[in-house]
Amino acid sequence: MLALRYVAFDGDDTLWHNETRFQLTQTALRDLLRRHVPDADVDTHLSEVEMGNLGLYGYGVKAFTLSMLETAIQVTDGRIPTADLEVILGWGKKMLGEPTELLEGVEDALRQVGRNHQLLLITKGDLFDQESKLARSGLAEIFSGVEILSEKNIQAYRSVLRRRQIEPGEFVMVGNSLRSDIAPVVALGALGVHIPYPLTWHHEQVPEDAMPSAGWHRLASIKELGTLLDTL
Amino acid sequence: MLALRYVAFDGDDTLWHNETRFQLTQTALRDLLRRHVPDADVDTHLSEVEMGNLGLYGYGVKAFTLSMLETAIQVTDGRIPTADLEVILGWGKKMLGEPTELLEGVEDALRQVGRNHQLLLITKGDLFDQESKLARSGLAEIFSGVEILSEKNIQAYRSVLRRRQIEPGEFVMVGNSLRSDIAPVVALGALGVHIPYPLTWHHEQVPEDAMPSAGWHRLASIKELGTLLDTL
Repeated sequence: MLALRYVAFDGDDTLWHNETRFQLTQTALRDLLRRHVPDADVDTHLSEVEMGNLGLYGYGVKAFTLSMLETAIQVTDGRIPTADLEVILGWGKKMLGEPTELLEGVEDALRQVGRNHQLLLITKGDLFDQESKLARSGLAEIFSGVEILSEKNIQAYRSVLRRRQIEPGEFVMVGNSLRSDIAPVVALGALGVHIPYPLTWHHEQVPEDAMPSAGWHRLASIKELGTLLDTL
Repeated sequence: MLALRYVAFDGDDTLWHNETRFQLTQTALRDLLRRHVPDADVDTHLSEVEMGNLGLYGYGVKAFTLSMLETAIQVTDGRIPTADLEVILGWGKKMLGEPTELLEGVEDALRQVGRNHQLLLITKGDLFDQESKLARSGLAEIFSGVEILSEKNIQAYRSVLRRRQIEPGEFVMVGNSLRSDIAPVVALGALGVHIPYPLTWHHEQVPEDAMPSAGWHRLASIKELGTLLDTL
């Protein structure tokens, strides 16, 4: 068996809070639009617009902001005042400018695991936003490599491992999304460590029984990661 | 002297048309907003909004669309009808979905240069959009490596060369922007080949006399690249 030389981490909702901010903004959108259309199903509509735009926009705050604007116009049949659309534009900017808030225990866990492994950051989303979040996180110098991918599927991970000359058997991926962080790396023969975040965007959800039975572990907190890796 | 093993190409306005599409959309925005505010200086206003947002949004069509919306609301003092904002949202989608239109002679030039050099694509902008454009260009398999950067400055090029273990003396960068493609690589001791595009976004412009006097060449067309490289 190969030694686990590389431990890679997802960023959003694994190292720093992300989905919470999206959900807070979505709640504000719901409140705003219900002032115009009291019985509007804003969440469903937004979700449909987001999925419809995914192939054009990809992931991230700018995509989310554009989809919120589209939803606001559609849900109100164009009756939403321009001032409210300006408010939505402002929410997007606020999200992009917010400090990167680390999850509890992240910094200690990274330093501990970094003593015996090379650390990589493999995150998905908007390039500019992710780089900016990483810079503001204060964690940039901990990672020996950073990969920002537009999609985290088997092919994307395969190409990262090849480019970095990493064998699947020496690679662990740590993340909160079964769909993006665990399933594809397990399919490649690498190890996954799932650390759930209290909130998961519906798009990232995978039914538990669709997951392979072996090749991955689940932890309640990143604080337990060092101990788990020592036993592998 | 090291042999020129690596020839890297910018994407937008070097391999495929880009700025033309932005300018066409900007013309449409000007026409739209002047129906509401006949004497509005839309170009100046948009440019200021774009520069103000650069640190939050970065480059690309999504950033441009959000800045167009903000400009439209500001220039009309919020009097723009929602239907017109929906039109602007649609322009962004149209730009993102358009086919990648190669500049004349690109494919032949790449195949010719690729016989004696490794080809890289080093482009700037929105990750998702750039990947999508590359996929639609039909050129993806020609490049031995692809780098999509959020900013093309000295530090970004230095880190690409280090990561790929490329010496500046064996590297040529080919692109249309003096600011993003030529000045930073010349500063690193690599060679630049400037191929101007008829249109240049003001943000990419550099006064000619601010450029170093050596370390770069200028061609009228990518068709001349193979011949130039043969003489170096």
